[in-house]
Amino acid sequence: MEKGYVQIYTGNGKGKTTAAIGLSIRAFGAGLKVSFIQFVKGRYTSEMKSFEKLGIEFFQGGRPEFIIGKPGKDDIDAALKTLEMAREKVSSGMYDLVVLDEINVSIYLGLISEEDVIDLISKKSSRTEVILTGRYATQKMIDMADLVTEMREIKHYYTKGVEQRTGIEV
Amino acid sequence: MEKGYVQIYTGNGKGKTTAAIGLSIRAFGAGLKVSFIQFVKGRYTSEMKSFEKLGIEFFQGGRPEFIIGKPGKDDIDAALKTLEMAREKVSSGMYDLVVLDEINVSIYLGLISEEDVIDLISKKSSRTEVILTGRYATQKMIDMADLVTEMREIKHYYTKGVEQRTGIEV
Repeated sequence: MEKGYVQIYTGNGKGKTTAAIGLSIRAFGAGLKVSFIQFVKGRYTSEMKSFEKLGIEFFQGGRPEFIIGKPGKDDIDAALKTLEMAREKVSSGMYDLVVLDEINVSIYLGLISEEDVIDLISKKSSRTEVILTGRYATQKMIDMADLVTEMREIKHYYTKGVEQRTGIEV
Repeated sequence: MEKGYVQIYTGNGKGKTTAAIGLSIRAFGAGLKVSFIQFVKGRYTSEMKSFEKLGIEFFQGGRPEFIIGKPGKDDIDAALKTLEMAREKVSSGMYDLVVLDEINVSIYLGLISEEDVIDLISKKSSRTEVILTGRYATQKMIDMADLVTEMREIKHYYTKGVEQRTGIEV
């Protein structure tokens, strides 16, 4: 693309990761070069199969053993490795769209620092669109972004006792 | 699926249609049967190519000539035909996920009536998840849904004069 921007999807509602998936699918359909990088997540999710079929680059940087909570040294090492890979892709000028899924949560959990992510964004190639998703986007990140959308939960069926369903939630 | 719910993505922010695309891609990856039906829209969008490649059912019900504003008789006829097709799919019990993209906007524009959509939802097969997207979801629709997410615009680069870009916005 000629010019890429920085987008954030945050908030407590559904649709943050799926919006990033949808954008990747749209971009790929337009012949753009896409990389989808998941922080935190390290377990198989159903979208991976569709990405594989289409040949869209997809990478999971979390450890399957990681449970949301206080991260261990292995979790932090894994996150730093993912961040390094993300930095290369975002700055390379080779991509039209790079998704950094759940990167906001990674900062919140202490897996990576806000400064490192801001540094990564400052090194972004001007042609690359970067999408940062996850709850708890910080004010500094919001200030830095061009487009910020809050997914706000108005009503949720979890209160009805619905479990995570394969193909819908994961 | 065993049990499907009714989800709404509404609000003035980005990510409503892309979240529905992402959910379709996830569901398809899990081997679920998906139909993606677009109301209002009648012009080629980049995601269509990816859907075609994967073999996900995709249908555009809008007329290419339609410009947001007061709809003509042809526009209303096209919307009613799309609604009828949607009703069949939603009630058939053949689908795990049916997306009715921009259906909220169709009501708002007077292309279809709120009553018709509520009637459609009431006839939903219990195994089918239905996603309704678009701005201006009505209170009655929200009351009827199991899960409602508002995409809220916090910051938008349109103020910087960015045009709609192929692969990102369309």
